[in-house]
Amino acid sequence: MMRNILIIGIGAGNPDHMTVQAIEALNRADVLFMPDKGTEKAALQQLRRRICDRFIRNPDYRTVTVAIPQRAPAGSDYRGSVDDWHARIAASYQRLFSEELAEGQCGALLVWGDPALYDSTLRIVERIRASGFALDYEVIPGISSVQVLAARHRIALNRIGEPVLITTGRKLADGFPADQDSVVVMLDGDQTFRHVASAELDIYWGAYLGTPDELLISGRLTEVMAEIEATRAQARQRHGWIMDVYLLRRNRPA
Amino acid sequence: MMRNILIIGIGAGNPDHMTVQAIEALNRADVLFMPDKGTEKAALQQLRRRICDRFIRNPDYRTVTVAIPQRAPAGSDYRGSVDDWHARIAASYQRLFSEELAEGQCGALLVWGDPALYDSTLRIVERIRASGFALDYEVIPGISSVQVLAARHRIALNRIGEPVLITTGRKLADGFPADQDSVVVMLDGDQTFRHVASAELDIYWGAYLGTPDELLISGRLTEVMAEIEATRAQARQRHGWIMDVYLLRRNRPA
Ligand SMILES: C[S@@+](CC[C@H](N)C(=O)[O-])C[C@H]1O[C@@H](n2cnc3c(N)ncnc32)[C@H](O)[C@@H]1O
Ligand SMILES: C[S@@+](CC[C@H](N)C(=O)[O-])C[C@H]1O[C@@H](n2cnc3c(N)ncnc32)[C@H](O)[C@@H]1O
Repeated sequence: MMRNILIIGIGAGNPDHMTVQAIEALNRADVLFMPDKGTEKAALQQLRRRICDRFIRNPDYRTVTVAIPQRAPAGSDYRGSVDDWHARIAASYQRLFSEELAEGQCGALLVWGDPALYDSTLRIVERIRASGFALDYEVIPGISSVQVLAARHRIALNRIGEPVLITTGRKLADGFPADQDSVVVMLDGDQTFRHVASAELDIYWGAYLGTPDELLISGRLTEVMAEIEATRAQARQRHGWIMDVYLLRRNRPA
Repeated sequence: MMRNILIIGIGAGNPDHMTVQAIEALNRADVLFMPDKGTEKAALQQLRRRICDRFIRNPDYRTVTVAIPQRAPAGSDYRGSVDDWHARIAASYQRLFSEELAEGQCGALLVWGDPALYDSTLRIVERIRASGFALDYEVIPGISSVQVLAARHRIALNRIGEPVLITTGRKLADGFPADQDSVVVMLDGDQTFRHVASAELDIYWGAYLGTPDELLISGRLTEVMAEIEATRAQARQRHGWIMDVYLLRRNRPA
């Protein structure tokens, strides 16, 4: 009888993006493990709570808070610092899994968006298993912020028969990839689109997607860039945090 | 009072991947427009029916079948032939929207997976609007086959901080992109992975994802390639059709 962990994608802001499968998984769990990152936006924690309250049928569902250690500043060794940080997070989870779950019981981890995109939960659970701790796990996909971006702008991510690249602000800082047509940028705290400004690119930008505070701006990059910058700065100040994602696309076929 | 069209992502094989939002949208629709592609797999049509029967609360929901014209063989002008084909499809839909929907009514189009990935529904609806036919529309994201692939293999699509490219078999035929680490390949009728065979690539392959016939194979490309080819050929013969998608990833960091 192994412990079983359900890694559940809960969508990226709108509780209505929960799937039937994710709702069933929430209801199968004996314990819900809720990360407390300290720095993490209270809004995200609230959304997780709201999802649980709305969709879990047993009103006495049990949650356990997981204190997430702070990440050391990255310095030059980005991958190394992430690795060390994941090791410490894995250790916290492992301790709680063994204390809070009896053998044969089932725990849930609620992941923002889709667990397959820029999320470390899968790697952390794999790490716990690799250390010899007996554990089975299952992944439930969720609607990612990239999909909400496309849906709200009512666009496809790819052009007919063309690829789409999903990347990070850090990578975009090297320039718009010469051989690409459509590029989705996540994890950009820096408005890196400014550094690739070109009248040959269109941008579809979205912040707080799926939430009542959602912001959408699109147009030729050089024309709407300043508006996005100003809107983003204002919103960030008002809310105390921001999450945004955007698609850049060549406006002439490559 | 405009006609309103809901473009609803229904997931890529498992009805449990329907979101709460998609279920609500189905129930808002006065008419469901169901494409009949002739060539289309009966299994896909069945799944759409099953989703409607299971999730629509009004047992007398109204469906209208849309005959989808055949596409002319592509020849050398791939984009041109698709364009012409979309024009004819748009004309069929437009006629049915005006005949079957009163002004102010709401129609639904059920899209396989997520409407944002390699699907033409959005372009067809945009085309109808561009022709001057008054129409509003809304997009509801759905779980895509790419996400099911990742969830079932229990992997992230990206490596830590690295991008992921989503592309087609047709594009992969030009070779594994030199500057990429993780590449998802869709729309590959040709097992194009054979042409990029290398011991430096891992493959995560899935067919009929989300359905009871699901097949999963993963490993070093050169080692599992033959098994995938054989499994695919057998399954295709048994079912009369196949849909598969895979992730290729360098097994040494790029
Ligand atoms: C750590 S990644 C997690 C992504 C998540 N797994 C997903 O599927 O969307 C966080 C990044 O996702 C994007 N993001 C997540 N939720 C968002 C939202 N509601 N609105 C805009 N961007 C969002 C932002 O680019 C943010 O920097
Ligand atoms: C026309 S595209 C539509 C993609 C769809 N919009 C999505 O989000 O998955 C069809 C391609 O999607 C992939 N696909 C769709 N459903 C699948 C499934 N259940 N299993 C495996 N591949 C699938 C295959 O690569 C197929 O060639």
